[in-house]
Amino acid sequence: MKTILYIHGPNHNILGKRDPRFYGTMTLQDIENDVDTLAAELGVKTLHFQTNYEGAMVERIQKAALEEKVDAICINPSSFTHYSIALVDALELCECPIYEMHISNTMKREDYRQRSVVSPLAEGILIGLGRDVYTLALRAAVSKLNAEK
Amino acid sequence: MKTILYIHGPNHNILGKRDPRFYGTMTLQDIENDVDTLAAELGVKTLHFQTNYEGAMVERIQKAALEEKVDAICINPSSFTHYSIALVDALELCECPIYEMHISNTMKREDYRQRSVVSPLAEGILIGLGRDVYTLALRAAVSKLNAEK
Amino acid sequence: MKTILYIHGPNHNILGKRDPRFYGTMTLQDIENDVDTLAAELGVKTLHFQTNYEGAMVERIQKAALEEKVDAICINPSSFTHYSIALVDALELCECPIYEMHISNTMKREDYRQRSVVSPLAEGILIGLGRDVYTLALRAAVSKLNAEK
Amino acid sequence: MKTILYIHGPNHNILGKRDPRFYGTMTLQDIENDVDTLAAELGVKTLHFQTNYEGAMVERIQKAALEEKVDAICINPSSFTHYSIALVDALELCECPIYEMHISNTMKREDYRQRSVVSPLAEGILIGLGRDVYTLALRAAVSKLNAEK
Amino acid sequence: MKTILYIHGPNHNILGKRDPRFYGTMTLQDIENDVDTLAAELGVKTLHFQTNYEGAMVERIQKAALEEKVDAICINPSSFTHYSIALVDALELCECPIYEMHISNTMKREDYRQRSVVSPLAEGILIGLGRDVYTLALRAAVSKLNAEK
Amino acid sequence: MKTILYIHGPNHNILGKRDPRFYGTMTLQDIENDVDTLAAELGVKTLHFQTNYEGAMVERIQKAALEEKVDAICINPSSFTHYSIALVDALELCECPIYEMHISNTMKREDYRQRSVVSPLAEGILIGLGRDVYTLALRAAVSKLNAEK
Amino acid sequence: MKTILYIHGPNHNILGKRDPRFYGTMTLQDIENDVDTLAAELGVKTLHFQTNYEGAMVERIQKAALEEKVDAICINPSSFTHYSIALVDALELCECPIYEMHISNTMKREDYRQRSVVSPLAEGILIGLGRDVYTLALRAAVSKLNAEK
Amino acid sequence: MKTILYIHGPNHNILGKRDPRFYGTMTLQDIENDVDTLAAELGVKTLHFQTNYEGAMVERIQKAALEEKVDAICINPSSFTHYSIALVDALELCECPIYEMHISNTMKREDYRQRSVVSPLAEGILIGLGRDVYTLALRAAVSKLNAEK
Amino acid sequence: MKTILYIHGPNHNILGKRDPRFYGTMTLQDIENDVDTLAAELGVKTLHFQTNYEGAMVERIQKAALEEKVDAICINPSSFTHYSIALVDALELCECPIYEMHISNTMKREDYRQRSVVSPLAEGILIGLGRDVYTLALRAAVSKLNAEK
Amino acid sequence: MKTILYIHGPNHNILGKRDPRFYGTMTLQDIENDVDTLAAELGVKTLHFQTNYEGAMVERIQKAALEEKVDAICINPSSFTHYSIALVDALELCECPIYEMHISNTMKREDYRQRSVVSPLAEGILIGLGRDVYTLALRAAVSKLNAEK
Amino acid sequence: MKTILYIHGPNHNILGKRDPRFYGTMTLQDIENDVDTLAAELGVKTLHFQTNYEGAMVERIQKAALEEKVDAICINPSSFTHYSIALVDALELCECPIYEMHISNTMKREDYRQRSVVSPLAEGILIGLGRDVYTLALRAAVSKLNAEK
Amino acid sequence: MKTILYIHGPNHNILGKRDPRFYGTMTLQDIENDVDTLAAELGVKTLHFQTNYEGAMVERIQKAALEEKVDAICINPSSFTHYSIALVDALELCECPIYEMHISNTMKREDYRQRSVVSPLAEGILIGLGRDVYTLALRAAVSKLNAEK
Repeated sequence: MKTILYIHGPNHNILGKRDPRFYGTMTLQDIENDVDTLAAELGVKTLHFQTNYEGAMVERIQKAALEEKVDAICINPSSFTHYSIALVDALELCECPIYEMHISNTMKREDYRQRSVVSPLAEGILIGLGRDVYTLALRAAVSKLNAEK
Repeated sequence: MKTILYIHGPNHNILGKRDPRFYGTMTLQDIENDVDTLAAELGVKTLHFQTNYEGAMVERIQKAALEEKVDAICINPSSFTHYSIALVDALELCECPIYEMHISNTMKREDYRQRSVVSPLAEGILIGLGRDVYTLALRAAVSKLNAEK
Repeated sequence: MKTILYIHGPNHNILGKRDPRFYGTMTLQDIENDVDTLAAELGVKTLHFQTNYEGAMVERIQKAALEEKVDAICINPSSFTHYSIALVDALELCECPIYEMHISNTMKREDYRQRSVVSPLAEGILIGLGRDVYTLALRAAVSKLNAEK
Repeated sequence: MKTILYIHGPNHNILGKRDPRFYGTMTLQDIENDVDTLAAELGVKTLHFQTNYEGAMVERIQKAALEEKVDAICINPSSFTHYSIALVDALELCECPIYEMHISNTMKREDYRQRSVVSPLAEGILIGLGRDVYTLALRAAVSKLNAEK
Repeated sequence: MKTILYIHGPNHNILGKRDPRFYGTMTLQDIENDVDTLAAELGVKTLHFQTNYEGAMVERIQKAALEEKVDAICINPSSFTHYSIALVDALELCECPIYEMHISNTMKREDYRQRSVVSPLAEGILIGLGRDVYTLALRAAVSKLNAEK
Repeated sequence: MKTILYIHGPNHNILGKRDPRFYGTMTLQDIENDVDTLAAELGVKTLHFQTNYEGAMVERIQKAALEEKVDAICINPSSFTHYSIALVDALELCECPIYEMHISNTMKREDYRQRSVVSPLAEGILIGLGRDVYTLALRAAVSKLNAEK
Repeated sequence: MKTILYIHGPNHNILGKRDPRFYGTMTLQDIENDVDTLAAELGVKTLHFQTNYEGAMVERIQKAALEEKVDAICINPSSFTHYSIALVDALELCECPIYEMHISNTMKREDYRQRSVVSPLAEGILIGLGRDVYTLALRAAVSKLNAEK
Repeated sequence: MKTILYIHGPNHNILGKRDPRFYGTMTLQDIENDVDTLAAELGVKTLHFQTNYEGAMVERIQKAALEEKVDAICINPSSFTHYSIALVDALELCECPIYEMHISNTMKREDYRQRSVVSPLAEGILIGLGRDVYTLALRAAVSKLNAEK
Repeated sequence: MKTILYIHGPNHNILGKRDPRFYGTMTLQDIENDVDTLAAELGVKTLHFQTNYEGAMVERIQKAALEEKVDAICINPSSFTHYSIALVDALELCECPIYEMHISNTMKREDYRQRSVVSPLAEGILIGLGRDVYTLALRAAVSKLNAEK
Repeated sequence: MKTILYIHGPNHNILGKRDPRFYGTMTLQDIENDVDTLAAELGVKTLHFQTNYEGAMVERIQKAALEEKVDAICINPSSFTHYSIALVDALELCECPIYEMHISNTMKREDYRQRSVVSPLAEGILIGLGRDVYTLALRAAVSKLNAEK
Repeated sequence: MKTILYIHGPNHNILGKRDPRFYGTMTLQDIENDVDTLAAELGVKTLHFQTNYEGAMVERIQKAALEEKVDAICINPSSFTHYSIALVDALELCECPIYEMHISNTMKREDYRQRSVVSPLAEGILIGLGRDVYTLALRAAVSKLNAEK
Repeated sequence: MKTILYIHGPNHNILGKRDPRFYGTMTLQDIENDVDTLAAELGVKTLHFQTNYEGAMVERIQKAALEEKVDAICINPSSFTHYSIALVDALELCECPIYEMHISNTMKREDYRQRSVVSPLAEGILIGLGRDVYTLALRAAVSKLNAEK
């Protein structure tokens, strides 16, 4: 059974309490439920990890790439998107496809939110689809894994 | 029944013959079949339009916005993405949600392909997911339309 | 009798339905009526042309410059204002004075609307005067034509 | 009866002696006569003020905004156009419409003349129409005042 | 027999009437005669196409690349040189060598004329040689085709 | 009783040992004593938190915003001032006023120290006042809290 | 007894009438009263000077630096903040500490308001604290003067 | 007899008291004596004018250009050098040669002192020669006037 | 005996598994062995520290500077090189020489890898020498320490 | 008989040994033979000069312009193309037409190779045509010389 | 007796034949005569050196600085002004004052001529005074040497 | 026996006399002695070459690459580092590893010294290590040569 790792960036532990114009009222638990329900339906296994620490995210990705050898990574790096080269270096270790996700349309917001250092490494990028961004990324990942079989 | 308009930009009439590193071997007909099959399953109606002319794309969007009043637009503006302000002006007429799609990961390519004048108008943006970008956009659109009911 | 050509750019066929914050509720027909009424009063003849196609606008200007030899051109190039060098090349053919017009104050809007490739060719520029921009341009043109007599 | 204030910027006290390529041979008195003749015809009252001092222009505008409460301001800020933030701050006091005027087509001249700090505050902008710029601005102002009645 | 397609960009239908400082007095017919005379001498066949529409130029190149499979393209994209990414995408379809030609020395003119989005795709670039640019490109193309035999 | 949270950024645990040209010889303990003495006098309660970890600062602010609901935050983000978007996102959660403080005049130092991503969120900014910056911020916060009563 | 000079820049003679979003409803007289009351309490003498003329501000500072030899200057240069190098040159004459004050948070406003040519000369900078900015600057100045005794 | 006008910019009334690293200990009177002594020797007449007001400098130049018709202007615009377009506009009135002078080497100082808006109008520019800059400019002016005879 | 601290940045715990084009196949243990062998030969003591956390690196440097007072620091800050001002602030505490090391030639790679915020603090910089970079830095440090004796 | 000078820039003495991706396998001798053969056929005389020294190239051009008065110059300035203003100054002496040639398509290579300080002086520019660039330039030059007769 | 070295940059060996709009008709010999005549009058000795080679200029300056120990250098570096860092490094060896001279007003010409890498090293800079620039620099140098006695 | 060529750039013939803050008091002879002593110890042969002429450096590298086929090049290009593309082109001929060396830490100095056009070609780069930079580069080169055996 294929395994897909979801990584949730800083300040996402409090989703649902953050600015609802951009992030809606769902919580991180709601998102994980959405994803896990669809994963069961599609026949894949998911892992979830949230952190506010850049170092912890780097080490989680190292483990996924070198030990667990997961089949895909779906990541919403949140504010790390815009400047964390340490995250870029960790993601470069991964041979599996990477999906970058953003809940809000970052292209409508402040200039510094429109630049992503992660995008050049991504297999696909999904921006501004709200809660659906997490399940659509799962579909994209599974579709690609099936195509490669 | 809800109606969703797909707009395909310049040089997409010859998909399948274009650089396979970026665009794969599928044809526009393959993509339309994918979309229509899923649309039937989800219970919505789709329209398709391809053109190599900026003026024709502008007029097609005017009609969709003012006469047909479609429920969503899924658009891959292709090279117009990067410079057509006339397209921006036409899309600003639309009150329905707009989904911007790109087959290849434009964020890995030339600088001028990394800028989109369309993105600030989009409800959601899907980049670099290959053939799946068209059906995932449909799922996103239908999910939003259902949520609004 | 002097002849003055009015050129209306892309998306102006639907004036009145476009964002009323910037463009008001008048239609293109209303504008043409305003212009023609004043033209009659001032004793000049007017022609009107609207298109959403850059190529068509280029060819209309070629005809005005080389065949009709009109006495002045009043042009609202709309979105072509900002990037159409083909339009610039066509306007360079004209020996008659050119008046550039914009309904809304483009200097208050997005950065890309503040740059005009047409302005260096203009005899005069009128920005942000709403419906009056069309009749004031006519007055300016006629005043100049009379001064040259 | 409505009152419209004309403000004339630095070096305009010597119009007629300045570079005739750009400014023609008319004097400031000629311009004031043009304006006043048309004002009589349109049934409005005009005031004129010229200064070479930024501080004096600021105070004149303060008086117009807070004491006289004029109905419109037509201003050719001359060289202050390009850098006087003190002027911007004073104009922000005004609730009436502001018309920015330039005799020559500043968009054809030095780079530093193509930037206006005043434009974002303007109701309308008229550039490069020679002597007519002053009477056309009056027409625009009166048309707007009538429309608001 | 080898076939070489000449593409002539917007406003080139009126060559001979355009600014003679840059473009001389020759007409498009004169240029085509020059080219065809030399082609006969060198034993190759030529095709000519002029348009003012970006969409039409894109479709002509698609046909040349996918149906006719011409042996070389000599293109003077005129104003499209500077901004048409749709043209770039179409030219990327071509496996044959592409020669970019400009009559005037664009490197001496306005900044926006000094940037070409087409150049990175060209086998060779010829700038500022006047009428001779068309026949010299033909010689270059034929020389390359002969070398590959 | 109102509660005000003081946040001290990286390398401030060693104040007094850092470059005395910019930071003087006071220690963090000295600063906290200054603040607490004035707080007692003004009748408010203060909390202090120092960290060298971006993730820890983010979590401390989340707690202050969502659980403790402090009445004001006085923050010297130190080096995080210049690039931590994760910090910006956490501060956006806060509904209370935020005061940004810097001991040295950052406007006299390296370019990268002159840019603050935090400033647009601040109620007030105090720069370069040495040890006094901490008590002056407290006065500003209390003055505002009193005004709102 | 120590003397502290307050300098108030252009348009501050009309505080209370200017845009209340940024500047509140207090008048310059209110501010001077605030400052003088606190000065009496802290045992220092204050002077006040307001002007709309750059030259007058320069000469007032020259006098303060060379004749009166005041002990500190608290200045809100208003729009001169952003471009008056004459003001910079005059302030460079002063050996006493200089405090720069702004009522509104200029870091949230237009780009040109975010640049201060005065800041590199300041002992301290206080931004966006409303009416309190004037008394807090006085406290900072007196604290520094006491520390030097 | 030829007349040469010397214009001295803001803060030059206190030369000798300003930063001696850059400006030495000479006073404006010393400089005028130097100039007048050499002028007598070379057989020309000199005029001197100093002001701290931009408006006053503009009017002095207007008078020199239009009424006195002086034969040359030697100007040290001091801080106006870097931004006063009003000064530029006034100097454009002059048909006589203009010499720009700076006591210190502005090219070694702050960036903003390295840009002169006046230089493009100057016949000659003399920088960083200390007290001698004034007499050398006089020699240059007289040499040119003699050459034209 | 002199002590030299080696600091290894994020993602260096997995050297040998990272992209071999840039980083080769050696592990961090191999590098530490290389360094320790040469240190023994040169008669100095070495310490090693690796972390993926910015805060931990800051605190390790604080300890080295203020408590251990090591004689030199050899640091490969990895991705922190390019953006960590907190690291810069910590290194500024050190009075001993600092050697910056990079395994790969960062000057051949992405733009963002070519900028180092650490370099201005370094005694020496060694780039792109592969495994040897660590022992060469040791030689440089020891040579300097010997020269100072 | 007309004389045409060919100038070959630095590192062209070793053509054939340089990177064959860009420069092919021909030697400078091969190129000179090509040129001389065609020159004989067209009835003109050619001179050749190669140097690795900027000063020598400058002096060769001075001689050609002032003494020999050659009829045309065909120059491949190689790396001097991008920065030698001394070369520009020498070429400005020439009244004859100048042809700039580059073997490889510099517009596909590093950014610094895409800028030419020579191009604004050229009659024509030929880029990326390989070995043929030298003979095509000769044809262009002779065609122009014949046209002028 | 004091010795002053004049250095003349590339293309100055042919002064008098170069573009007379900028450089007049004088030859290098004329300039040397002017200088030597005035030198005799002022009681100093002059040396002259012209070269088109950067390396030769560097070596001449090394000799002047280290062996001859001349008392001043007057240099017109011509095109080397704008880019020769080797020249800057050589001039940094000199302890005597350096005078930079330009015949034409470089501030009116191309952008690249407005930047001087030499200026920060100069005691004085004289621009755009034609032939007089050489004798005025001599006067400035001698005045300074006398002042130091 | 392996041969390693040392190239010393402009102004290095006078090392020891140049600014001792950056370059110390050693002479070029001292450096060559250091290198040769270590070379003897490591069993390799060294060659040395110094020049102030770009052309001479280019030709020396051509000879090393094509005739001598040296095993490594250690180069301190001095001021040519920053702008000599001719040097870049010559170094591209070399198949052996290249080591770039700088005595002072160029990253602490003027902006223009922080850019190296040579670095992208280097196997390794050593900056700011003083006299040791030359022997450390030798060790790096020999280590690499041994590793390849």
